[in-house]
Amino acid sequence: MNALFARRMELVRASEIREILKVTARPEIISFAGGLPAPELFPVAEILAATQAVLENDGPRALQYSTTEGHPRLREQIAARGNALWGTRHAPGDVLVTTGSQQGLDLIGKLFLDDGDAVLCESPTYIGAISAWNVFRPYWVPVPTDDEGMLPDALEALLARTARVKLVYAIPNFQNPSGRTWSLERRRALAAAAARHGIPVVEDNPYGELRFRGAHLPAIGSLPEAGEVITLGTFSKIFCPGLRIAFVAGSAPIVEKLVVLKQGADLHTSTLNQMQLAEYLDRNDLDAAVRRLCEVYAARRDAMVTALEREMPAGVTFTRPDGGLFLWVDLPEGVDARELLRRAIDAHVAFVPGGAFFPDGRRQNCMRLNYSNMPPERIEEGVRRLAALIQP
Amino acid sequence: MNALFARRMELVRASEIREILKVTARPEIISFAGGLPAPELFPVAEILAATQAVLENDGPRALQYSTTEGHPRLREQIAARGNALWGTRHAPGDVLVTTGSQQGLDLIGKLFLDDGDAVLCESPTYIGAISAWNVFRPYWVPVPTDDEGMLPDALEALLARTARVKLVYAIPNFQNPSGRTWSLERRRALAAAAARHGIPVVEDNPYGELRFRGAHLPAIGSLPEAGEVITLGTFSKIFCPGLRIAFVAGSAPIVEKLVVLKQGADLHTSTLNQMQLAEYLDRNDLDAAVRRLCEVYAARRDAMVTALEREMPAGVTFTRPDGGLFLWVDLPEGVDARELLRRAIDAHVAFVPGGAFFPDGRRQNCMRLNYSNMPPERIEEGVRRLAALIQP
Repeated sequence: MNALFARRMELVRASEIREILKVTARPEIISFAGGLPAPELFPVAEILAATQAVLENDGPRALQYSTTEGHPRLREQIAARGNALWGTRHAPGDVLVTTGSQQGLDLIGKLFLDDGDAVLCESPTYIGAISAWNVFRPYWVPVPTDDEGMLPDALEALLARTARVKLVYAIPNFQNPSGRTWSLERRRALAAAAARHGIPVVEDNPYGELRFRGAHLPAIGSLPEAGEVITLGTFSKIFCPGLRIAFVAGSAPIVEKLVVLKQGADLHTSTLNQMQLAEYLDRNDLDAAVRRLCEVYAARRDAMVTALEREMPAGVTFTRPDGGLFLWVDLPEGVDARELLRRAIDAHVAFVPGGAFFPDGRRQNCMRLNYSNMPPERIEEGVRRLAALIQP
Repeated sequence: MNALFARRMELVRASEIREILKVTARPEIISFAGGLPAPELFPVAEILAATQAVLENDGPRALQYSTTEGHPRLREQIAARGNALWGTRHAPGDVLVTTGSQQGLDLIGKLFLDDGDAVLCESPTYIGAISAWNVFRPYWVPVPTDDEGMLPDALEALLARTARVKLVYAIPNFQNPSGRTWSLERRRALAAAAARHGIPVVEDNPYGELRFRGAHLPAIGSLPEAGEVITLGTFSKIFCPGLRIAFVAGSAPIVEKLVVLKQGADLHTSTLNQMQLAEYLDRNDLDAAVRRLCEVYAARRDAMVTALEREMPAGVTFTRPDGGLFLWVDLPEGVDARELLRRAIDAHVAFVPGGAFFPDGRRQNCMRLNYSNMPPERIEEGVRRLAALIQP
């Protein structure tokens, strides 16, 4: 059967995270493996009220085919909200509504990447980008990265000497998986270097609004140094993921091509889901809802950081993110997190081994922990179980 | 800018239909160009009731991330319904829920098609398959086709002598754009020939349930002669398209790969939309709703056929479909339907020029007419306007 498939399937395999999640869905397992928002905070009643209004006032339209670009009112809301938060200057026409940010990644890969093209990325980087783009068979080039973002000299050198660079991919706020946030200086350095080399930046910002401390930093795409920047944003983390509403924004020549590719990929995103969200945004104060989310997630992050500080042996270090859903743990040299996971599941605790976030699989002594999906007591108990397995 | 894009973009252009639809959205234009179901028949109240039940009983789950494969209850319903109607024997695990059938096509193209692989198709064939698959740069091989389906001898010869055939693509019921339905003999011949050559058949069946006369014919995938058959089905035409719920069904090795590709393409289809549909199906009699749709569409088809018989000059022929949404008109030699469309829009009537449905653009004296989206009087008036432009 395999000879029947396209060559691109050689690089395509089931996501390690999804496979782990199947095992860890058992209720007795404390799972830090997923990246699920807290379902108890979803605005269920508000969504029901919005749905009622949409179906009663505009039912046939909400259930009909609609344009590939997206619901006009929602594109206005997305542009206005993003510009206010991040300093960008997107017109509604620069916004394409997508079926989750994962679709935005797929469409961008389709638009830019030929077999053997290079993508510069953080190290580690988001596993969903790896799985979206590997079907287009690019060559991943990890840029040396510290707590403030990509190192400018290394970035410049790689841009200058790497053949066929097509994209630079970055998650500047509370990165998945590391939890790190880029400093303003590093944002400027990336914007300037990419512009100088004429390489588009893909700025993926799913977590930016979930900031627990400090002030928002401007988007790379808003900086005066920036050239072509393609922005990805989503309502999955600040509203709910089940409706699959996200967006791509960028310059007209790029968004036009992405629209054509989306026509071929799924025609358009659910009309009803787009109108539900637009109606929700018109009726509710999303900023207030985000503040409430931040309070809950900050307490969970604090619980995890405190427990890690208390429980973990010397030689284990971890990030202390200012927002988002994840933190990153570096284990002593020689520990293989995949092997640790097998023992962890026996001890009823789970995480994602960090190797999956390196396109070249170069490191295995690390892991990603999610703290958004359970109360502090359970986080503390999970960290205790985990730490007991790591004792030297 | 173009040098930045992937080579696959050379073949990608805006869908001719979508571009036409933009012009023809003006209310004074009678448009036979789209393929929209009748919105006045959408079950708005029933969907609202189902939504209320889902959100009240299971809100957090309906708004959360869910599995790529699809909502378990819906996969059961899809398998059971499809098997009862078409004679297939799909288990729920053979079903992958997709974001519209367009996504099923995209995923199948990604799974099978390398640059230069061949796809055997009907002539004309569905424009959405052309736009989904052209990004993978296949070579389209139209199989000579008459009113009953592909000609078996021609199909056999092309299967035998064409290099790198990866798929045979067919829409056996009320085909878009031609309205034709394959006879049982032709279904058997395709199933047997493809199985003999080890080539998977993609059986796309979006319209099958909308049969106005005669009895359902078995699916190609249900026939004893069949080898690998990948079935595409959708709720867009029998429920509503705005929720983007469709499915692919096939053998385990293929569905497993499609699941992995869907993970990379959009993670999963809207959880809420899937649960809305599952709840709707549990609470309502979809078969009765389909019967009502068939009555309305049959009257519209009859109005169009009668008007065409009365109004069109000699030399114009057209199909008389037993179901579905479209019929096909062959114009006299030398008429270019693209040029006719420009005059038609001035006369406030629109259609899709048939050339777009031939991957090689070989014929231009033909057009596709949709009759599902307006009442009989308006259909008659539109046909009158159109016929007046074709008088020799």
